[in-house]
Amino acid sequence: MSTEETNHSSNEDMQNALFIIKIGGNIIDNPAALEAFLADFSKINAAKILVHGGGKIATKIGTQLGIESKYIDGRRITDDATIDLVTMVYGGLANKKIVAQLQALGTNAIGLTGADANIIPAKKRPVKTIDYGWVGDVETSGIKHQTLNFFLGNGITPVFAPLTHDTSGHILNTNADTIASSLAVALSGSFKVRLIYCFEKKGVLEDVNNDASVIRKLDRNYYQQLKEEKKLFEGILPKIDNAFAAIDAGVSQVLIGDARDLIKNTTNDNEGTLIY
Amino acid sequence: MSTEETNHSSNEDMQNALFIIKIGGNIIDNPAALEAFLADFSKINAAKILVHGGGKIATKIGTQLGIESKYIDGRRITDDATIDLVTMVYGGLANKKIVAQLQALGTNAIGLTGADANIIPAKKRPVKTIDYGWVGDVETSGIKHQTLNFFLGNGITPVFAPLTHDTSGHILNTNADTIASSLAVALSGSFKVRLIYCFEKKGVLEDVNNDASVIRKLDRNYYQQLKEEKKLFEGILPKIDNAFAAIDAGVSQVLIGDARDLIKNTTNDNEGTLIY
Repeated sequence: MSTEETNHSSNEDMQNALFIIKIGGNIIDNPAALEAFLADFSKINAAKILVHGGGKIATKIGTQLGIESKYIDGRRITDDATIDLVTMVYGGLANKKIVAQLQALGTNAIGLTGADANIIPAKKRPVKTIDYGWVGDVETSGIKHQTLNFFLGNGITPVFAPLTHDTSGHILNTNADTIASSLAVALSGSFKVRLIYCFEKKGVLEDVNNDASVIRKLDRNYYQQLKEEKKLFEGILPKIDNAFAAIDAGVSQVLIGDARDLIKNTTNDNEGTLIY
Repeated sequence: MSTEETNHSSNEDMQNALFIIKIGGNIIDNPAALEAFLADFSKINAAKILVHGGGKIATKIGTQLGIESKYIDGRRITDDATIDLVTMVYGGLANKKIVAQLQALGTNAIGLTGADANIIPAKKRPVKTIDYGWVGDVETSGIKHQTLNFFLGNGITPVFAPLTHDTSGHILNTNADTIASSLAVALSGSFKVRLIYCFEKKGVLEDVNNDASVIRKLDRNYYQQLKEEKKLFEGILPKIDNAFAAIDAGVSQVLIGDARDLIKNTTNDNEGTLIY
C-alpha cells in the first residue's frame, strides 16, 4: 500500500478505535427507530460494542403475567419474579432480536449478559436503607477483557443486555449506563474508546429552552464555567459527572447525543456533545 | 513429566475429547434435577458443550400471555407470537439461569443461540404440505467451528438454547437433538466427540418391559440383528438411526442414557447405551 504517512496514522487510529454505544428503552420499544439505529450501527467501520437498556415491553409482559413493578421510596425493586421477567425480556427477547437483525445487516453480533463467560462479574447491591433485590453493582476490575478482545479482534460485535451475575448463581438487574461505562473503562487499556450515550436530545443544551443550543465540545474548564453560570439543566449534571469519571478512569471520550445522529457522532464532526 | 507411554496416550485422548450433551425439557422443568445435573456436568474434566431443550415453562408462560400452542396434523407450528415466546423463555430465562448456575459451579459457561456470532446458520423450513412457521433446519456446513474452538480452547463452555437464525433477521425454533448432532458433526474434525442424549430411561432396552435390560454397547451389526428379531421399542428406532447417521458423518460415539448417570456415561464404564 502506498498510503501516505498521515493517512497511515489515521488508519492506525481507526484500527485502535472502539465505539461503545448505549441505547435506551425508547429505541428498543420503537421497531422503526431500532431498525434505523441498527442499520447505522452496522455501518460503523471499527470495533464496536452495543449495550441496550430495557424498555416498556418488560412492564407490559410483566403486567400480563401478573408481575407488578415494586417501588420503595421511588426506587424500583427487583424481586424474584421481576428478575425472571427481565432475564426473559432483556436477555432473551430484546437481545436475540437485535442480534438476529444485526446479523442480517452484516454485523457479526453476539448477544451477551455479564454472566456469559463471566464477562461482567458483579455484586448484589448491599442492603443499607433499601433492599433493591436482585440488582447488581459491576466489579469493573473483574471484566474479562481477554474474551472481549478475542471477539473484537475477530470481527465479532458484543451486544449486552443490562444483566450481570453475582458469580453465585444469580442473574442481577444492572443499569445499562453503568455496564457501558464499566466496559469502556475496562477496555481503555487496549483501545481508544469513545463511549456514546444515546438519549432523547441532540446533546447537552447550553440553553434548556433552545434545542439548537447543543454544546459540541465540553472539557472540564468549560463545564466548570457553565455550572457556575447555572445554565445547564440540573437533570443532565449526573450524566456529565459520570462522563468525566469515565475519562478520569482512562476512557478517551464520552459523547451524549441522539441515536439518529449516530454516524456523525462517531466522527469529529459530531452533532452531539463530545466530552473529553 | 515422567508419565508412561500408555498414560500419556490416554491423557492425549482426554485432551482431545469433546462431550456434547443434550438435556430435555423434563430436566429444565425440575429445579432439583437440573441442579444435580449441572453439578455433574461441571465435574466433566474435558471440553464440553451443553444443548438444552425447551420445557413446559414456555407453554405455561404462553398460556398466561394468551399465546395458544398451534398444531396442524399433530405438528407444532411456530407463529410470530410463539417465536417471541420461545426466544424469551429458551434464549433468555432457561439459558441464562443455566449459565449463572454453571458459573457458580466453576464452569465458565457462555449462553448462545445459533444467531450469536452466526454460530449455527439455518434455513426456515420450506413450506410443502405444512407451514411450520419460524422453524429452522440447521445448515451444518455453515457452523462456525473456529469460534467454537476458541471457546473450547479457552475453557469456555458453550450452552445452546434450541434456537437458530435464518441470517435474514429472524430467530428460528430448532430441534435441540438436531442442534446437538449438527454441532457434533461440525466439530468431529477437531475433536473425538461423544454425543450424549439424556432421556427418561437408563438406555436402550433389549426388553421393553425390563428396565434392567439396557444394551451397553451397540454396533451396527448388533442393531441389525435386534431389529430383525423385532425386540426393540419402535419409538427408539429413529433415535438410533440418527445416532448411526452422526457416526457416519464423523462423530466417534453416541450415547443414549439417563441424565442421572451422566458421569458414568462420559467413561467407558457407561450405564447407558453406547452406539459406535
